[in-house]
Amino acid sequence: MEAYSQIILASRPKGLPEPSNFRLEPGPIPAPGDGQILLKTTYLSLDPYMRGRMNDAPSYAPPVSVGGVMEGEVVAEVVQSRHPAYRGGELVQSRIGWRTHAAVAPAEVRRVNTGANPPTTALGVLGMPGFTAYSGMKVVGQPKPGETVVVAAASGPVGSLVGQLAKLAGARAVGIAGGSAKCAYVRAQLRFDAVIDHKAPGLPHSLATACPDGIDVYFENVGGPIWDAVLPLLNRYARIPVCGLVAHYNGGALEDDAPISRTMITVLRRSLLIRGFINTEFVADHYENFLKELTPLVASKKIRYREDITEGLAAAPEAFIGMLCGRNFGKTLVHIP
Amino acid sequence: MEAYSQIILASRPKGLPEPSNFRLEPGPIPAPGDGQILLKTTYLSLDPYMRGRMNDAPSYAPPVSVGGVMEGEVVAEVVQSRHPAYRGGELVQSRIGWRTHAAVAPAEVRRVNTGANPPTTALGVLGMPGFTAYSGMKVVGQPKPGETVVVAAASGPVGSLVGQLAKLAGARAVGIAGGSAKCAYVRAQLRFDAVIDHKAPGLPHSLATACPDGIDVYFENVGGPIWDAVLPLLNRYARIPVCGLVAHYNGGALEDDAPISRTMITVLRRSLLIRGFINTEFVADHYENFLKELTPLVASKKIRYREDITEGLAAAPEAFIGMLCGRNFGKTLVHIP
Repeated sequence: MEAYSQIILASRPKGLPEPSNFRLEPGPIPAPGDGQILLKTTYLSLDPYMRGRMNDAPSYAPPVSVGGVMEGEVVAEVVQSRHPAYRGGELVQSRIGWRTHAAVAPAEVRRVNTGANPPTTALGVLGMPGFTAYSGMKVVGQPKPGETVVVAAASGPVGSLVGQLAKLAGARAVGIAGGSAKCAYVRAQLRFDAVIDHKAPGLPHSLATACPDGIDVYFENVGGPIWDAVLPLLNRYARIPVCGLVAHYNGGALEDDAPISRTMITVLRRSLLIRGFINTEFVADHYENFLKELTPLVASKKIRYREDITEGLAAAPEAFIGMLCGRNFGKTLVHIP
Repeated sequence: MEAYSQIILASRPKGLPEPSNFRLEPGPIPAPGDGQILLKTTYLSLDPYMRGRMNDAPSYAPPVSVGGVMEGEVVAEVVQSRHPAYRGGELVQSRIGWRTHAAVAPAEVRRVNTGANPPTTALGVLGMPGFTAYSGMKVVGQPKPGETVVVAAASGPVGSLVGQLAKLAGARAVGIAGGSAKCAYVRAQLRFDAVIDHKAPGLPHSLATACPDGIDVYFENVGGPIWDAVLPLLNRYARIPVCGLVAHYNGGALEDDAPISRTMITVLRRSLLIRGFINTEFVADHYENFLKELTPLVASKKIRYREDITEGLAAAPEAFIGMLCGRNFGKTLVHIP
């Protein structure tokens, strides 16, 4: 067993982090208290969300403080147990951060549960990144047979599973990845239907060609120019789960108020649900109840309304222009005598 | 009964329509064919969506052609019937457009069904605008007791119902309206909890003051500066039904590619669903199934994955920076020996 060390956030990065933003600190191996277990890390997971935690900005989780240990999840071995539920040698996963050892309470760990698969999968395809792909597709994306699903960072742990889940659901999977090696892997190993190299020129055109029937699910994990290329191809009723915006993490856009990305950054940070709609799509399910519920409420004045009535068809254009300028006061109607 | 007239789209507007974009055309009253009924319009509904139909741009519905009759819904009286299901004197609603009369098949009309309420309500609170508010709140907004619901154009037919439905659901209703008369109406007659005059200075500050607990539902019907003021106040898991973007209809933003509004315009036009999420919010409902389904698929290589493993904690910062630049190939892990 090596000596203890940990990696500290030495300073907050501007844009892309530099090695000087981190500091390796050695120290004594912690001693487990009564009821605690001592963990020795075997694998540390590095994930894009950690870039966000390095900023002193509001997000879904508090930032790492300067001088604090970098956050993160590990697979670790129990090397000493002072709790009856754990024995030395057991493998667990825990969010102890970027460190070689930690003494923790059992509530802070769970046993690695990857079946016949290597324990590292608990940090990847069978861990948080995999669950991000799975839950985003299950709850938001909901791909149907024959639909087209697009995902960027397609060779990465989230994107690779998004596309494979799309295939299992009978949808077409179109991946975007950087460079020919990753693209070949996505096509040959992950068996996506098409893959586009975002380092090659002409992404909007290549993407349009790869999606002849448009895009029904875009799993958003990067933002930036890829979102711009996706937007015109989205089909009616397309679903866009947003789990990350890696392209913005280092460009300052997460810190400043760049209007182009402010909406999507807020969508990500606050788990917003934005849904465009035209009332006609809800008629079949809700119109009957609408009339049944509202008619008596209007009659009893529990719901009130106001009308702004113009006389004569010839006056309709002017009434319409006024309405667009907010000069109407209530529902705009034209009475035709 | 007056003579027949109709209003034609004479030319496509740039920005705010002008009277010269419309033309009043007289003509003979149409004669109903066998099986048709002749309608005489009593009320024509004017609605903001019509501005979109005046553009020659793709949307959820085809545009009105230049020289064509302006589209719209009316309440009309059956003045002559050549179909056994209708009698003269019956009131119906139909999308015959901006015209005094039309001969239509019964499939194109439905009887006015507003109970004890005036027939004009079939075009407002008990018609398409009302149903827009109702269905957007029912399907997307879903206000809960104690939550804060914000809506603009609060004295209009959609906004006024949104706020009143919020109140009926036990939520706080905060309206935005233009000018003191409308604000007084929203507060006193519609009984919203707070109302803000968007013509007064300091909208972002007034809105923040009116929403001390943030915003849980923002019913979007205007866009523009109001969206900018709402965005920082949105709470985690806020819902944003988007049924219109009136502020953009005349600014050219629906026609050009202004990046600030392109995303929201596409949301509106294509009924997109955008949902930010953090995987942890789905753990309770989906994590168990995730492991149960995925573990055997990974073991049997039906789902594939790839890892990118760096040796030693000291190398973690460099591996992390490389991952943010896309230099990793697969799930980034640090092995700690």
